[in-house]
Amino acid sequence: MLVLHSWTTPNGRKVPILLEELGLAYEVHFVDISKNEQFEPDFLAISPNNKIPALVDYGAEDGPLSIFESGAILTYLADKYGRFLAPRGHARWKAMEWLNWQVGSLGPMLGQLGFFAVRSKEKAPLAIDRFTEEAGRLLGVLERRLGETRYLAGDDYTIADIAAYPWMVTATTVQKDVLADILAGKKAIARWMAELAARPAVQRGMAIKPPPRGIS
Amino acid sequence: MLVLHSWTTPNGRKVPILLEELGLAYEVHFVDISKNEQFEPDFLAISPNNKIPALVDYGAEDGPLSIFESGAILTYLADKYGRFLAPRGHARWKAMEWLNWQVGSLGPMLGQLGFFAVRSKEKAPLAIDRFTEEAGRLLGVLERRLGETRYLAGDDYTIADIAAYPWMVTATTVQKDVLADILAGKKAIARWMAELAARPAVQRGMAIKPPPRGIS
Repeated sequence: MLVLHSWTTPNGRKVPILLEELGLAYEVHFVDISKNEQFEPDFLAISPNNKIPALVDYGAEDGPLSIFESGAILTYLADKYGRFLAPRGHARWKAMEWLNWQVGSLGPMLGQLGFFAVRSKEKAPLAIDRFTEEAGRLLGVLERRLGETRYLAGDDYTIADIAAYPWMVTATTVQKDVLADILAGKKAIARWMAELAARPAVQRGMAIKPPPRGIS
Repeated sequence: MLVLHSWTTPNGRKVPILLEELGLAYEVHFVDISKNEQFEPDFLAISPNNKIPALVDYGAEDGPLSIFESGAILTYLADKYGRFLAPRGHARWKAMEWLNWQVGSLGPMLGQLGFFAVRSKEKAPLAIDRFTEEAGRLLGVLERRLGETRYLAGDDYTIADIAAYPWMVTATTVQKDVLADILAGKKAIARWMAELAARPAVQRGMAIKPPPRGIS
């Protein structure tokens, strides 16, 4: 059995998309970060960094395995089920480099942009400028890549696309007012987003949400 | 032949440490980011994100392979040479989750702390407070982990340690004035850092530097 601890954030939606693409049965335990549930002791034992997502695979080789960090979880599931990440060769490492790019740059920088430019009531122009500029640079990198190849890793849809997509949805919705000028005319990104948005598994993964209060 | 494109930054030192641990012959091409050399077209072809490090393995299976992103490069080399990352099982995924933690959290957050609290002449208190607080949280996570296990992934020294170490050197040197109070009393981190600092390969990897001007 696969149990995913997650929430309705970009990082929280990556793993459900992959689970849906793989056609696996899984349970989602929602960890409400707006109520600081990620700091509760039970969750800390699974996710020592106090962040979602975390996965527990009760059917892992050598016994139940908990994994935190979305990049590690995506790699684990793709390798275990042999899809969306080549087992070896150039195709594997192109996917791994773009996955790491999402984990180390696109995610953290859009995350900080969201805080400083959207959520924070206090405004720090130095920080807004810095993260807007870096987001612009990264979206330029993404546009150039997707102008050369169909997917981030090349010809094949991989966990690198699955990792980047929920953040790009945030960039084009919640952060639209900040990034609209930067995204205008970026046709390759728009083409790639439309293609991913049309995948039923992506739609189902993006739609995860906690049950109504009082029923859970 | 292995050619590493790098510079004397925390991310730039991770791969030399691993190459030294593996006892491999390699060349370093220094990309002087203080002169914006990372934006030159030759480097862009290897590293589409315009960042160091990037590795070219001329002896890769299926022909020469270039990889950017330090986390992907570390994983590639560890898998190719079969050391510092278990090939499968729990040990592999514990290393991968802590590697991703470094790539997605420790590195980016200490990097931003360095900009706002150390390098920037203009000061944004909101940003300094935010990144100091997040650095403190992450160093608490690291201390707790290293209080339970000898290395980040458990009993064995892995690429997760190699990835985290150069950033922790930055935290305890360049960022000392900002983080001294947070680091005071964190004995497990100090124990782990002393152990890594004593490794000859770590010393050699940390010491990479460009040749004197006029000789290169």
